[in-house]
Amino acid sequence: MKININGNIVDPENAWISVLDRGFLYGDSIYEVTFTINSKPFMLTEHLERLWFSASRLALPIHLTREELEQEIEKTLSALAAPRAYMRVIITRGAGEISLDPNTAGRNNMVIITKTLGENPAWWYEKGVSVIIADTMRNPKNSIDPNIKSGNYLNNVLAMAEARDVGVFDAIMLNHEGNVSEGTTSNIWSVRNGEFITPPLEAGLLSGITRKTLIRLARENGLTVREANITPTELMSADEVFLTSSTKLIVPITQIDSRPVGNGAPGPTSLNLLEIYSQWIEAQYGKGFMPAFHS
Amino acid sequence: MKININGNIVDPENAWISVLDRGFLYGDSIYEVTFTINSKPFMLTEHLERLWFSASRLALPIHLTREELEQEIEKTLSALAAPRAYMRVIITRGAGEISLDPNTAGRNNMVIITKTLGENPAWWYEKGVSVIIADTMRNPKNSIDPNIKSGNYLNNVLAMAEARDVGVFDAIMLNHEGNVSEGTTSNIWSVRNGEFITPPLEAGLLSGITRKTLIRLARENGLTVREANITPTELMSADEVFLTSSTKLIVPITQIDSRPVGNGAPGPTSLNLLEIYSQWIEAQYGKGFMPAFHS
Repeated sequence: MKININGNIVDPENAWISVLDRGFLYGDSIYEVTFTINSKPFMLTEHLERLWFSASRLALPIHLTREELEQEIEKTLSALAAPRAYMRVIITRGAGEISLDPNTAGRNNMVIITKTLGENPAWWYEKGVSVIIADTMRNPKNSIDPNIKSGNYLNNVLAMAEARDVGVFDAIMLNHEGNVSEGTTSNIWSVRNGEFITPPLEAGLLSGITRKTLIRLARENGLTVREANITPTELMSADEVFLTSSTKLIVPITQIDSRPVGNGAPGPTSLNLLEIYSQWIEAQYGKGFMPAFHS
Repeated sequence: MKININGNIVDPENAWISVLDRGFLYGDSIYEVTFTINSKPFMLTEHLERLWFSASRLALPIHLTREELEQEIEKTLSALAAPRAYMRVIITRGAGEISLDPNTAGRNNMVIITKTLGENPAWWYEKGVSVIIADTMRNPKNSIDPNIKSGNYLNNVLAMAEARDVGVFDAIMLNHEGNVSEGTTSNIWSVRNGEFITPPLEAGLLSGITRKTLIRLARENGLTVREANITPTELMSADEVFLTSSTKLIVPITQIDSRPVGNGAPGPTSLNLLEIYSQWIEAQYGKGFMPAFHS
């Protein structure tokens, strides 16, 4: 693991931030996560675009240009020198007097955490994963918009804790209208009669970069994708369900609340989209990232 | 300022926490704030009770007994050696692998921040303060319960930012039913026909220690207090409005959304309660804390 704190690259045991930093006091920070394929950060431009979007939504000024931040990321990944790496960049509003008022903050702090990334387990793709529908509801847009990727993640931690309490992989969170919003760190998709359905951004969810790419790729390949609200009942009676995330790609969900989805195995429509996505990734970034199942 | 990090007392420029701490990554932490009167922490037992309540709600184990934590607080305040001090205690879920799953966390981190506390400005009590009703809605109970005092405070930061953008003191937040919940760091009260009305805990608010004490003291003094929902319209047409908080005590709100409350000056019923509260505090903790206006 190598960590960059405001330009200084250190080992994790020396990676410190002031306890007066607002990221620590209030979760007043934003972040992005991606990984490298053949040492190249995956969709970095899109992730940095979203970081700046989150910053604008919180009126959190970033005292770095995109080029400077890209250079810091590259510098950190070079120090790590791993062919497959996880990369998390965090920008906080900085330290100041102890006050909620954001105007009291000083200069931003920048933290880049990189570590060697193992392969995603093949069973995720071969068997699929089990999830629950959480009792914890996703934060509503007019409280803390899920479209802002911030340091306030307790809502998702609570949902994930529900999942781990019953020994499953993840939790699906509903919005306050009772419709599916997203997983704790993923977007949710369903397949019904050969058509992909995923909740619209209005349902209160992060605009996933994988989600956006897959909508485009699917349509380019003649497949139908509809952005529409999904009720829990509709989700559980879908032919196939899967989650998407930058690091997890497309993971079939084969069990929800202990009941099988479809026939309880990853479905052909999901696996076809994963194949399309895999080919697109390999065309862009070369071979070497895709999970073992992929030929 | 003196800061205690896991038992070591340091100056603020040496007060660091790991960037891998979940308090920094996710706001996965709990806290309490109080102050000292004549070097004695105000209502410490009640604050520590609430800290343990927040911990239980988040299933966040605290690797300290209450007595140990009290000793650490005392040690830090002794090092600060200020007659009037602010004290913030933070317990995080600790560091671990980077995962939402709380079971991956290691040992808690404890941070106690103390600093010299100035007198509350006399004008708060003499003229009262102006507030707005924020567009940012308070987190609903089934997403992140406002009754848990956690490191996820962005919801309140956003409301406070709205207030500071128009140059006022604070913001009142509504719940998703459209009723008054609380201020960004305070509880809200109104007075109508001589009766105190404050929103019930069910409205989604922190169970304030000052709030609870004042309900008891008011009733002991033959005054009527009703816990009932308050609509914004009811609030704005009340005879008097005020906020309560541990550090701010009772502060009259004399303007909401640029319109005067009552006759636009602190009301006699609010000031009477402040007088009752002041006398109770002085009986418990001695003279020397109450604001300058108080004889």
